[in-house]
Amino acid sequence: MARMKLFYLGPEGTFTHQAAMTAADQFATLGDFDLIALPDVPAIMQAVQSRQGWGVIAWENNVEGYVVPNLDALIDAPNAAGFARISVDVAFNAFTVRGHSIYDCTGNPVSAHPHGLAQCTRFIAEHHLQPEPASSNAAACRDLKPGRVALGPSICGELYDLDTLAEHVQDFDGAHTEFLVIAPRDVVQELNARAHSNDAGDFETIITFIPLVTGPGVLADLLDVLRDAGLNMTSFISRPIKGHDGTYSFIATLDAAPWEPRFRTALEEIAGHGDWAKTLAVYPRRERPNPPVDAWMLPEGGVHITNRAPEGWQYTEEARKELLW
Amino acid sequence: MARMKLFYLGPEGTFTHQAAMTAADQFATLGDFDLIALPDVPAIMQAVQSRQGWGVIAWENNVEGYVVPNLDALIDAPNAAGFARISVDVAFNAFTVRGHSIYDCTGNPVSAHPHGLAQCTRFIAEHHLQPEPASSNAAACRDLKPGRVALGPSICGELYDLDTLAEHVQDFDGAHTEFLVIAPRDVVQELNARAHSNDAGDFETIITFIPLVTGPGVLADLLDVLRDAGLNMTSFISRPIKGHDGTYSFIATLDAAPWEPRFRTALEEIAGHGDWAKTLAVYPRRERPNPPVDAWMLPEGGVHITNRAPEGWQYTEEARKELLW
Repeated sequence: MARMKLFYLGPEGTFTHQAAMTAADQFATLGDFDLIALPDVPAIMQAVQSRQGWGVIAWENNVEGYVVPNLDALIDAPNAAGFARISVDVAFNAFTVRGHSIYDCTGNPVSAHPHGLAQCTRFIAEHHLQPEPASSNAAACRDLKPGRVALGPSICGELYDLDTLAEHVQDFDGAHTEFLVIAPRDVVQELNARAHSNDAGDFETIITFIPLVTGPGVLADLLDVLRDAGLNMTSFISRPIKGHDGTYSFIATLDAAPWEPRFRTALEEIAGHGDWAKTLAVYPRRERPNPPVDAWMLPEGGVHITNRAPEGWQYTEEARKELLW
Repeated sequence: MARMKLFYLGPEGTFTHQAAMTAADQFATLGDFDLIALPDVPAIMQAVQSRQGWGVIAWENNVEGYVVPNLDALIDAPNAAGFARISVDVAFNAFTVRGHSIYDCTGNPVSAHPHGLAQCTRFIAEHHLQPEPASSNAAACRDLKPGRVALGPSICGELYDLDTLAEHVQDFDGAHTEFLVIAPRDVVQELNARAHSNDAGDFETIITFIPLVTGPGVLADLLDVLRDAGLNMTSFISRPIKGHDGTYSFIATLDAAPWEPRFRTALEEIAGHGDWAKTLAVYPRRERPNPPVDAWMLPEGGVHITNRAPEGWQYTEEARKELLW
C-alpha cells in the first residue's frame, strides 16, 4: 500500500496529533500514514500544497469558537481543501515519570500550556501542585522531570513512556475540538468523486463568500438565495478579509454537497451576482444532536414573546432593560 | 468626584489593564477610577453585576477573532451590558531588570505567554534568546530576574520598574484587540440616555438573537427584517447556545442605536415572531475604514465572475476545482 505523509502541529502528543492518529485509522484503506510533526500551521499548509502529503488542522472548539488563523489560512490557500472532519475530546490526564506516585509529587510543580493549567484547576488545588507554564501540553509531558507532574492528552503516556496518575482531570467535561483533514484540491475532488459515486450518504460543505458590493442587505440577499434553495446552515461567521478592518468575507457551513443540483444552482446564482466564492471543505455529514430550543435552554434575561404576549410589551421597563432602547 | 472601581483581567500589566487605563481616562468626567485586577472574567462579571463597579473585557482581536468565552459570558449575564468599545494595539516591548543591556542577555532566557513568544520570533532569534513560557506576559514582566528578558505591553516598564530594551518587537504590526467597558444594565441605560439627549452622534449595537424554530431559512428570514429596515451590519457570527451542539444563537453588530425608530421597529417585528433577543452593548460608533473590495484584496483562488463572464464558466475545470462540485 502507498506510504503517505500526514502532517500535524507538533510536538508529538498534541490534541492535533491525536486527531491525526484518528485520521490515519479512518483512512487506513487509502494508505500507510507516516505522522509528521511540524512547528506551525503555515508549514503544514505549505507541505500539503507542495504535495508532500496531507495535513490536519484545528478548526473549531465548542468553548473557544473557530481557530480563526487556521480558517484565514485555508481561505487564502490556493491549493488545499478539507475532505474529513474529526472531533477530539479535550480531556487531560496527569502524568509522572515512571515509578512516582501522586504522593511523591504533592506540593511540587505541575506543567502544561497555560490553557491546560487553567482547565485543570481543581486537580491542581487538590494536590497542592505549583503551576508552571509550558509552551504546549505535549512539551510539558516530553520534558517532564522526576517528582513533577505534567498534564496532557492521553496519548502522551505511551509516547513519552510516562505513568498515568489520573485520567480526565479537567474541571469540566464536554469540551471538544474539531479538526479538518486537508489535501491538495485535485485530491479532494478525486476523493469526493469516489465517495459520491459510491453513494456514501450525505455531505457537509464549508464555503466562503465575499460580496464585491457592500452596504445594508448584502448578507441578507446572499442568505435569501441559500434559503430559497432549501439549504440548512449549521454555522456562520463574518471575517475581515485577511484581517483588514472594514472588509467582509462570510464563512458558512451547510448541510449539502456542492454537486447537489439545489446547491449548485444557488452557487451559480451567487457567483453570477459577481460575489467571490470558494469551497473550503466537503466531508461526510456528522451525526449531530438536533435538540429543540426550549425556554429552559435560553440565556438569562432577554426578551421572549410567547403567544400570550401582553399588549404594549414594547413599553415595559423589562423590554427597555433587555433591549436598551 | 465619585470614586469608582474598574475591574480588569490581571495581573497588572496585561493588555486588558492597558484598555482599563484608556477607559479611566476616557470617562474621567464620570468618576475617579480605582483599577482593580481580578483573576478571571467570571470574577469581573460577578463584580459588575453585584454593583461593585464597572469592568473591562476583551471582545475581539483582528487576527484571532472573537473572544468567545467572554461573548458567551455577556450573553448569559442577567445584569451587565457594554457602553464603550476600546481598541488596544497588540505591541510588545522587551524589558530587563534596570541596568542590564541587551548584550548582557544574549543567549539567556526570554519569558512571555506562549502567544507572546510566538509573536516575537524574529527578536528572539536575533538575540539568541531561549524562550521560556509564562502564565501571562504581565507575569513574565513582574517575575523578571536579572540577565533575563521579558516581553510584554509597554505599560509593564513603569509598572514593574523595568528598563525597556526595545520597543515594538512583534513580528507583525497591525494586530489589535478590542475591549468592551461593561456596567449594570440600568447604568448603561442611564449613560445611553444621557449621550442620546446630548445628541452625541451615531451609535453601534451588539445584539443576540435566538430563533425558537429551526430549519432552512431561519437566519435569512431574520436578516431580511434587518435589511428591510436599512440597517448596516458590520459583524455577524452564529454560536451554539452555551456551547450546546446543535443549537444556535446569532450575534450581530449593527450601525445603529436600538432606540432609532427603524431599528426599534425591526426589533419589535423579530420579537413578535417569537425569537429571543437581548442587546449586549450600545456604544458610540467607531471611526472605521470603508475600503472598496478590489480584486487585489481577494484571497487566492476562488471563483469571481466579472461582467465579461465567459459562457459556460460553470463547466470549466477551474470552477470545479474552486467550488468542489
